[in-house]
Amino acid sequence: MSAEIAEQPQALARTLENLLPRCDDIARLADGRGHVLLVARGSSDNAAVYARYLIETTCGLSAALAAPSVATHYVGERDLSDTLVVSISQSGETEEIVATQAWAHERGGATVAIANVADSRLVREADLALVTQAGPELAVPATKSYLTQLAALAVVAVALAPDDTTLRSGLQGASAEVERLLGTATDHAVDILAGAGDVLVTGRGIVLGTALETALKFEETCLRPVRGLSYADLRHGPIAIVDPDVVAVLVAAGDGPLVDGMAALAGDLRERGAAVLGIGGDAAFRDACDACLPGPALPEALAPLGLIVPAQLTIESLARTLGLDPDAPRGLSKVTRTDAER
Amino acid sequence: MSAEIAEQPQALARTLENLLPRCDDIARLADGRGHVLLVARGSSDNAAVYARYLIETTCGLSAALAAPSVATHYVGERDLSDTLVVSISQSGETEEIVATQAWAHERGGATVAIANVADSRLVREADLALVTQAGPELAVPATKSYLTQLAALAVVAVALAPDDTTLRSGLQGASAEVERLLGTATDHAVDILAGAGDVLVTGRGIVLGTALETALKFEETCLRPVRGLSYADLRHGPIAIVDPDVVAVLVAAGDGPLVDGMAALAGDLRERGAAVLGIGGDAAFRDACDACLPGPALPEALAPLGLIVPAQLTIESLARTLGLDPDAPRGLSKVTRTDAER
Repeated sequence: MSAEIAEQPQALARTLENLLPRCDDIARLADGRGHVLLVARGSSDNAAVYARYLIETTCGLSAALAAPSVATHYVGERDLSDTLVVSISQSGETEEIVATQAWAHERGGATVAIANVADSRLVREADLALVTQAGPELAVPATKSYLTQLAALAVVAVALAPDDTTLRSGLQGASAEVERLLGTATDHAVDILAGAGDVLVTGRGIVLGTALETALKFEETCLRPVRGLSYADLRHGPIAIVDPDVVAVLVAAGDGPLVDGMAALAGDLRERGAAVLGIGGDAAFRDACDACLPGPALPEALAPLGLIVPAQLTIESLARTLGLDPDAPRGLSKVTRTDAER
Repeated sequence: MSAEIAEQPQALARTLENLLPRCDDIARLADGRGHVLLVARGSSDNAAVYARYLIETTCGLSAALAAPSVATHYVGERDLSDTLVVSISQSGETEEIVATQAWAHERGGATVAIANVADSRLVREADLALVTQAGPELAVPATKSYLTQLAALAVVAVALAPDDTTLRSGLQGASAEVERLLGTATDHAVDILAGAGDVLVTGRGIVLGTALETALKFEETCLRPVRGLSYADLRHGPIAIVDPDVVAVLVAAGDGPLVDGMAALAGDLRERGAAVLGIGGDAAFRDACDACLPGPALPEALAPLGLIVPAQLTIESLARTLGLDPDAPRGLSKVTRTDAER
């Protein structure tokens, strides 16, 4: 896992170099379609959450996450002739994702596959394939494959928002920011988390997917229950049970319309006695946290490409501190089967 | 809370009597629109999850949950002229829901409001209002307002699937099933949950929203962290940390394509040492659980209207067992503000 985290600047650069030239193809395939349907599970689903916000805020299109059971178990009818269907799977072999893509294609959806394996079913059966260049990923917790999925999804957004220059120019600096963040000192963050009774991770909007991925990675790798939830859902109810036993990890972009709210949330959680560990944010956000890991110098729309790096480093180090093997956590395998026989 | 749980058969019957005659109006408003966008937060959001599956599996339309921040903070551009926008709020005054409905209306969405207060902003500003007949709800944890929201959403599905007779005929028996389930003995379930170290609630498809609502209600009312997650997401990773410290609550319909998978999941969780408390399901599912609360004799598409009742009864009783006040849990108020100043 450690080695694969370190490979990310190159994996990201290779992926962008390969995929940015495909923008015209993507735009042609999507032409006239006003809806994007994202199909994924697990870490790929967290990448899809990023894409959902990115597309809705940048491209002026509706984007939604598919419920695979509607395709695989209910076999629902649908007219998807107005929809671009983007399926995401590291292996390209996750059965329910392959099946959902096929279901969508039969119903008129134009299909884009994002996978890390060129010779996979998801890639072979798609109208257009964006193969990420992470290289073989051996550790069970996805790191470089996840980051390159984010890059592929950012390329889709570039293709769907041709007049937006922020995304395209921002992507040029992404690999260097990931490289810089690999040097993040995580000792203090590891100390805070090692002593936590209950951990929750929250974010909102563009960085919500990063919060969910941080929670999932933490749970899978450190084998502790960790809740990932949106800032808004947390505020709406579960904040009532936040107490000094809780370590709250707050993920924020350095700019954008939500960073002020994240700083206010940090203050409110500390008032309830929780320890607040920030990732990213602006100066006010960092001041409001007990401790803060640095984020990337990237616009909010691309911040998730950098924000996940300090989270990965912290989780990998924490796992070793806890005496666990971060490369092969108990009870997980690389190609997941949600429902093997059905 | 206890009194309001008991009022549900009448509240449900009144709501259906009032709203079923509106089906033609709903169908006219939705005519030619192939997408449904659901706008909600908290318990209403869990009702929206039900609606999302119900509409996608029964009506042949795409349905998705809105991300309110796209409207309220990013003010994203969009053409919603192909979309029916259904907003759900008990009070009809939740600021971000009112704002998101206005945002959607300005972008061409046809708007339906579901609220329990006729003289509320959400109702006044909608193209069409479905006012639930729960009567004033005084306890902070939503019970009868949630159940009548489910009924209103089922009416929307009836309107959007005029050829489906299962829904309309099934609704005739719903109130009687809720009445019958009010007699559920919950002592054994309360005992199991009172001794739990870690509680998770899971379901899939049509009943996923019920699982999420059970988790939220449990957490809000009993002030313990409880995770609600889909069967598929649980299988994909977090199942690795299930151990004898866990009580898993599994929600299942009595029929449909997912009940077999839920029975298999119950067996797998018990093999990992977890105690499994079922709600609903068929005979095989009940056999696979350590204990099981009964579900309604309703088709899967309407099962959530009954399944929530034994969950509510159990949670209310557990709160009192734990010495808590289920009517006014710590730190929650009735009209929620996700983000008061922004």
